[in-house]
Amino acid sequence: MKNFSGTPGTVLGLILRMSQFIFATGSIASIATTPSFFYYTSFCFLIASMALQIIWSFVLALLDAYALLKKKVLLNPVLISLFVVGDWVTATISLAAASASAGLTVLYFHDMGHCHFGEECQKYQISVAFAFMSWISISISSLIMLWLIAAG
Amino acid sequence: MKNFSGTPGTVLGLILRMSQFIFATGSIASIATTPSFFYYTSFCFLIASMALQIIWSFVLALLDAYALLKKKVLLNPVLISLFVVGDWVTATISLAAASASAGLTVLYFHDMGHCHFGEECQKYQISVAFAFMSWISISISSLIMLWLIAAG
Repeated sequence: MKNFSGTPGTVLGLILRMSQFIFATGSIASIATTPSFFYYTSFCFLIASMALQIIWSFVLALLDAYALLKKKVLLNPVLISLFVVGDWVTATISLAAASASAGLTVLYFHDMGHCHFGEECQKYQISVAFAFMSWISISISSLIMLWLIAAG
Repeated sequence: MKNFSGTPGTVLGLILRMSQFIFATGSIASIATTPSFFYYTSFCFLIASMALQIIWSFVLALLDAYALLKKKVLLNPVLISLFVVGDWVTATISLAAASASAGLTVLYFHDMGHCHFGEECQKYQISVAFAFMSWISISISSLIMLWLIAAG
């Protein structure tokens, strides 16, 4: 397997994992502090998917940091296959949850003319924005991983 | 480039393109016949994304059928790169649109207890289901294409 920038155990790989973790945490922090998120299935789904994202990215960030510190190469085919599956599953769930929540936010902000929940409205928007940023970084990681395994 | 089942110009490739086309057409046919879809940004986005899906899959299905009939091999790297980008863009947009519409449908069916638009409600659900089926088939095509180009 060829080692290039963004693969596990590289600085870019670690930066991508950390950004996924930070954006997903921001998304949960923003939506979980609203008093009414649990009335909406899509917002609950967003929290669940961002929680999955946080756990996944945190474990992989630790692994990257360990590999960088110990100067180890993490290019075991079985390990990479596991990362590819995990990355694709979390990326797909993140996009679906972010889009479903964006659908609701657009309904309240655009289709109904204005959002009448006061301060909560901004929090919904911020949470959706963070979720999309988290999805962008996990999708970059997913593409790098799939490329790595397909290129052998 | 290795030629395997599902690549452009194979029977499985053609079946995948045709199923994307049929499901996307079903999704548009179902939602566009409701009298109120244009009040909802997410449903308009669904129609736009499914229209893009129909055009893309139709052109590629024609190309596959031509290659099958003339027994030509469509494994030009430039052509495949173009297919990969097109597939990934349409797959991502399809998932985002299907999820946003599913978010709205779940809001009306589950969060608000019941849907009070009568016959339209079933049409929304059918449209979202077709959109997800279309996304599943385009995502299989996308993975095959990316694998093909990465495996060289």
